[in-house]
Amino acid sequence: MPTEPTHRFLRACQRLPVEQTPIWLMRQAGRYLPEYMKVRQQAGDFLTLCKNPELATEVTLQPVCRFGVDAAILFSDILVIPEAMGMGLTFGSGEGPILEPVLRSAADLDRLTPVDPEDQLGYVLQTVTLIRRALNEKTPLIGFSGSPWTLATYMVEGGSSKTFRYIKGMLFDQPAVLHRLLDRLSGVVADYLNAQIAHGAQAVQIFDTWGGVLGPQEFMEFSLRSMQQVIQRLHRVGPDGQKVPVILFSKGCGAQLEAMVESGCDVVGLDWTTDLGLARQRVQGRVALQGNLDPAVLYAAPERVRQAVRQLLQAYGPHPGHIFNLGHGMAQDMDPERVVDLVAAVQEESRIILRT
Amino acid sequence: MPTEPTHRFLRACQRLPVEQTPIWLMRQAGRYLPEYMKVRQQAGDFLTLCKNPELATEVTLQPVCRFGVDAAILFSDILVIPEAMGMGLTFGSGEGPILEPVLRSAADLDRLTPVDPEDQLGYVLQTVTLIRRALNEKTPLIGFSGSPWTLATYMVEGGSSKTFRYIKGMLFDQPAVLHRLLDRLSGVVADYLNAQIAHGAQAVQIFDTWGGVLGPQEFMEFSLRSMQQVIQRLHRVGPDGQKVPVILFSKGCGAQLEAMVESGCDVVGLDWTTDLGLARQRVQGRVALQGNLDPAVLYAAPERVRQAVRQLLQAYGPHPGHIFNLGHGMAQDMDPERVVDLVAAVQEESRIILRT
Repeated sequence: MPTEPTHRFLRACQRLPVEQTPIWLMRQAGRYLPEYMKVRQQAGDFLTLCKNPELATEVTLQPVCRFGVDAAILFSDILVIPEAMGMGLTFGSGEGPILEPVLRSAADLDRLTPVDPEDQLGYVLQTVTLIRRALNEKTPLIGFSGSPWTLATYMVEGGSSKTFRYIKGMLFDQPAVLHRLLDRLSGVVADYLNAQIAHGAQAVQIFDTWGGVLGPQEFMEFSLRSMQQVIQRLHRVGPDGQKVPVILFSKGCGAQLEAMVESGCDVVGLDWTTDLGLARQRVQGRVALQGNLDPAVLYAAPERVRQAVRQLLQAYGPHPGHIFNLGHGMAQDMDPERVVDLVAAVQEESRIILRT
Repeated sequence: MPTEPTHRFLRACQRLPVEQTPIWLMRQAGRYLPEYMKVRQQAGDFLTLCKNPELATEVTLQPVCRFGVDAAILFSDILVIPEAMGMGLTFGSGEGPILEPVLRSAADLDRLTPVDPEDQLGYVLQTVTLIRRALNEKTPLIGFSGSPWTLATYMVEGGSSKTFRYIKGMLFDQPAVLHRLLDRLSGVVADYLNAQIAHGAQAVQIFDTWGGVLGPQEFMEFSLRSMQQVIQRLHRVGPDGQKVPVILFSKGCGAQLEAMVESGCDVVGLDWTTDLGLARQRVQGRVALQGNLDPAVLYAAPERVRQAVRQLLQAYGPHPGHIFNLGHGMAQDMDPERVVDLVAAVQEESRIILRT
């Protein structure tokens, strides 16, 4: 029988009362931090850093130490799954990831190898173990994976895309092949997240970065459905007997909020194009909401950051179930000092609002 | 006193009954057409082509001749306005436009020169005149402009952007400066569209390509409001005494549909992430709707194109006020033959649905 968590991040995920709104930031460990750049240079390149549990642990902890955010998130990349399935993964300098050879047909899918997370993704699980040990119960750890749809876009396109020509060609012309790929990915993602949970991840987030390039019907059929399959297979209680909340973040999909609520997740992440106050009314207390500051506010002055924080906290109001976050990840040209301002503003302003 | 138009595109803009749903395609004249590439090579580069009224007329007519679409759209670029205001405009090879020197402060705005469309943008107006003459009343001509917000993003960023760092920095830190720029642009855009109307444009579309990067409040304040100012200043009756409909297209802003309806436009363009059937219910006959096929459907087989067309036409139903279009522009790697299939499917399938 799970007991009530004490960390405010985990409490907010379960819509339990908190005195202060928890905050963490997508891509909080990254290139905008000088201490990250140091470790990154030490590792040589991004993928080597991801695969080195000691260094990955170090960069995971950096924003927790520097800013006192309410959750750590595993430092890794969503594309370690396609690599574990046998695809070649490289990160070109500044040009984004390259996955090869690309998947374009049913026959191509047969090339994919089965994944035992303890085997091919053991370095991630080892990182989870090390982070939990280092955090020493002070801050909870979030594990994560890309969504099946988002992973499929990279595997079929061979990297990032603007037009999504090949994955959408497959979606419209060979939906059965795409469903086979997505089903396969749902299994791998579920196993991978369950392994992260077994090794100590106290919450998990599914990043559906490219859900928003789909029309409403296609989003339901090709993105949300496979995320639902993942969620159904997740172990929602960790080895410590505590509930493990699931956060679903489909960027650009605020219009499909009601459907996301039905997915079985505990928390829906929102980008800044959705009104947080209206969103809270729409979900009617069935899930917690995470978000949703426009990250570009961090390019503005400290007073403006505070004003934006206040507006967002007021829009959500003095209700349980809000986790403060950006609507998208930190950018590399952002100033860490603005994050200091942001965290202080969330802490101070939310205490005022939650007292009322 | 305007009389009822006869062209089905203009009739649909006014929500008058038609026997067949009109269709045109954003970026219907462009690099996917071999005949366009020929003229483009002849011109030398893109901007020279835009500034050559004879050649710009020729490429405007190409998709009308090849596909029999129901409207021509002026071949030009939204960035001719910043250039007319004194900024240097160049198109790097494949890297998108460069505008310089960038605007970052109130003082920078003072550098912008007043625009008399008949003077600095005379080549566009001459093109409008030539196209109207060539079309000879057979097909109506749509003029266009970028929205003030979208133009401002290019002028402040110095080109395309992923993070919109500078324009959003200005929005959050110096909103008064941004409003001054937007007010200035609203005036120029209105004058420019009025000049296009005076020279024969029979409808005008405002392209708000980057409205969707804004949160709901910011969209209202910085994008929609300036488009409203433009619309209020437009001459809605052409030199022939006919009504000139205004089409507003804010990409990625389907959630703000009700607000866009209130802008005073006649038609709202939608991208494919908004459900067309629900959108029709939401607008309650107050505007016509344009859209909203995912352009990526054109990467699929002809039968699949037809199926997608049928779904979309059925979603709108046998009601007046639908203009078929893509939810975004044609891409350069698309096959013109799929456009043939698309146009035939819209013509044939809509006749069946509109008979019921």
